[in-house]
Amino acid sequence: MPAQSPPPRTDSRPGGRSARIRAAVHQAVKELLTVEARDALTIPVIAARAGVHATTVYRRWGSVGELLADVATSRFSGDVVVPDTGSLREDLERYAYDLAKDLNDPDTLALVRAIVGTGGENAGVCRMERQRQLEAIIEREQTRGNETPAVERAVDALLAPLYYRAVFTEQPPSPEWARTLVAHLLPG
Amino acid sequence: MPAQSPPPRTDSRPGGRSARIRAAVHQAVKELLTVEARDALTIPVIAARAGVHATTVYRRWGSVGELLADVATSRFSGDVVVPDTGSLREDLERYAYDLAKDLNDPDTLALVRAIVGTGGENAGVCRMERQRQLEAIIEREQTRGNETPAVERAVDALLAPLYYRAVFTEQPPSPEWARTLVAHLLPG
Repeated sequence: MPAQSPPPRTDSRPGGRSARIRAAVHQAVKELLTVEARDALTIPVIAARAGVHATTVYRRWGSVGELLADVATSRFSGDVVVPDTGSLREDLERYAYDLAKDLNDPDTLALVRAIVGTGGENAGVCRMERQRQLEAIIEREQTRGNETPAVERAVDALLAPLYYRAVFTEQPPSPEWARTLVAHLLPG
Repeated sequence: MPAQSPPPRTDSRPGGRSARIRAAVHQAVKELLTVEARDALTIPVIAARAGVHATTVYRRWGSVGELLADVATSRFSGDVVVPDTGSLREDLERYAYDLAKDLNDPDTLALVRAIVGTGGENAGVCRMERQRQLEAIIEREQTRGNETPAVERAVDALLAPLYYRAVFTEQPPSPEWARTLVAHLLPG
């Protein structure tokens, strides 16, 4: 049985065995998340599926929450291309559209929900990359010398309704609806 | 060991033993949710803490998700009083303020996050009551013969940012900030 409190994590070594373990464990998590009405996602279950020792997983990730956060970091990095059309409105509409499309992917949704379920300190991973991308779009408009809403306001008006629908309702956000959110952020 | 697929649930009988079991199981869930870095919330763990047989829990609730939804339904019913000041703006400001206060309660937050983590089909419970309350506020203003935003728009502008902050960030929504959301929904 794995220890209740995991030993301190060691740094992962690049390539070789370490990389193979990481790939196998990530793959196991993704597969387990696709199982409907799955049992609780625990480290022993994940380790068994990945074909590695549970202690290896405990040592490397410490908890299911941190492991999910690691999977999410790979998943959400560089997956959505930040648009650069020269128009803030157009950029935001395209960005909201693409994000909604991503949140309609059952695998994305299962991962986001599972991370939230681990307690919250890891849930930021799901949206930090999104917030940075939104910030980049807004800063570019400011560089062009134009007024923009504050990033926080854009988060409330765009990211919040997208994630709220994805996580709390049975209807994932439609890409077409997502575009309309921009009109409330940038009226006129 | 409990069966993988639970038997069909029987109707719960009011009062007596049935009510005591429900109270004990609800209490066990609430206690387990307060444990930081808790192990996975599973029916055997919940049943052991409640002092009842796991099969009893499986038979009555079927899954952790449905059990959490039942706990949430009790928790979120009638807990926030819907304001009735005679002014839509004032009602919405008070309502957003009270909701933010509720979402700052670590027990509420832990319950909301845990339900989201069970996969989504149960997460609606967390917000259905809120959406109905928001609808009641808006309908009262319409009864007074005044124009109002659509309920869906109010959900996007008020509930979404509140839940997004609560679930995805480390800073739960402050009640003062929540009031300011109303200005974006009702400008001027």
